[in-house]
Amino acid sequence: MFAKNDPSCLRQLIRDGLLNQPTGGLAKGYVQANVVILPSSYAEDFMRFCILNNKACPVLEVLQPGDPYVRIVADNADIRSDVARYVIYEKGQQISTTESIEGEWQNDFVTFLLGCSYTFDTALESYGIEVRHITNKVNDPTYISNIECKSTRYFRGPMAVSMRPIPSNLVSRAVLVTSRYPFAHGAPIHVGNPEVIGIEDMNSPEFGDPPEIKKGEIPIFWACGVTAQIVSNSIPFMITHASGYMFITDKRIAELELAYT
Amino acid sequence: MFAKNDPSCLRQLIRDGLLNQPTGGLAKGYVQANVVILPSSYAEDFMRFCILNNKACPVLEVLQPGDPYVRIVADNADIRSDVARYVIYEKGQQISTTESIEGEWQNDFVTFLLGCSYTFDTALESYGIEVRHITNKVNDPTYISNIECKSTRYFRGPMAVSMRPIPSNLVSRAVLVTSRYPFAHGAPIHVGNPEVIGIEDMNSPEFGDPPEIKKGEIPIFWACGVTAQIVSNSIPFMITHASGYMFITDKRIAELELAYT
Repeated sequence: MFAKNDPSCLRQLIRDGLLNQPTGGLAKGYVQANVVILPSSYAEDFMRFCILNNKACPVLEVLQPGDPYVRIVADNADIRSDVARYVIYEKGQQISTTESIEGEWQNDFVTFLLGCSYTFDTALESYGIEVRHITNKVNDPTYISNIECKSTRYFRGPMAVSMRPIPSNLVSRAVLVTSRYPFAHGAPIHVGNPEVIGIEDMNSPEFGDPPEIKKGEIPIFWACGVTAQIVSNSIPFMITHASGYMFITDKRIAELELAYT
Repeated sequence: MFAKNDPSCLRQLIRDGLLNQPTGGLAKGYVQANVVILPSSYAEDFMRFCILNNKACPVLEVLQPGDPYVRIVADNADIRSDVARYVIYEKGQQISTTESIEGEWQNDFVTFLLGCSYTFDTALESYGIEVRHITNKVNDPTYISNIECKSTRYFRGPMAVSMRPIPSNLVSRAVLVTSRYPFAHGAPIHVGNPEVIGIEDMNSPEFGDPPEIKKGEIPIFWACGVTAQIVSNSIPFMITHASGYMFITDKRIAELELAYT
């Protein structure tokens, strides 16, 4: 067995093609990240988008144009090989998936690492709140809401939200615990009443698996990094991680907790 | 008397050249902002700097290249005329001050509005904490610390910090109150022991006025937006507001409180 909680070991296994699975449940206690890679001509505007839509796209690190080496949130990490599965988009349409982007890399690519809710799932569990999609070993249900993001020149569209069902008596606790992780989407953006944010059928999430919601549980919605893909319909070329196959950082969750306070 | 708490009225007076004074104490309850204007070729890297050094440079809004009109935090505001006093820098050196930059404006200028501690000064007072530099009608003392910012390609240097003396029994309250304003530097970065962050003489601040520290008070330090000027020595041309002459937004402080949670 590999050291499933050692970030650098996990990245090495991924780089060598020996580990190809979603990263949920791996490297517990460490921050995981969404990956967005764009040609440099779109990078400034995407940074502006992230700043304006910080709940959905909290930026952990932005690399210099052409630089594939993560500098701050991980040591010895090459973004071209250290994610187990990538997706390539043209004009917002997924055109292929791949296990390495070394062949695709261009000298003007700018890499963004964005916070991810896998970070606070661990925290919720440690505060005694069951995270259903972890219990059920499925992907968290993610919906396209009717909440419009603040648009920029090139990026425009609705916000994606992930949902976790929480017992009524623990909703307050779930809000408070996740609010401590602003770099990982922070507090919920919506509690209950899915139809108010344009979700008509909870059993048909646009991403992930349908949820199991038990009696007495309230659906709680957090802003989601998938938003970056939804708003990029006018971008000719973009690479992201594949859903669930996140970049594993060396940062302990506690190092970034309350980071923006 | 003008409506000293009406942001749009104040901006109009400033635009017309009828109000030329520091903005501390004006528009109470509204967010004020630091202004940084850069040629577009440095904008992406400055955004990266702000993201990495969010405590010192929390971004409220970034305009598109060449756009002088504020879009989100204020209505009908023209950044070329709506600040009472500007400073022009070359390679980090102040070369002139002016009351309008309409003559300087270039089509590639990118405007950044950054959070400002005037916002939480109001909050501290409303929680019963005296803010000495307001009481004494002087500018807050601001020091260049030895805390190195995370550098980017073009921006590198130490963090500026502003200081407020707080009675020992209220330090905890001051930390908690300001932590609610992450877009305005948030919680302190250092409490007590100025020498640890490289401040040898509290009576010689690099910016603002020397402080009055009473017996039983602890010096508390917050990250400061002046940092943007200190780290810009390699930038050929930059415009900022003059110290104390902030941009007044239409956003009520309560609208942005807890913004990043």
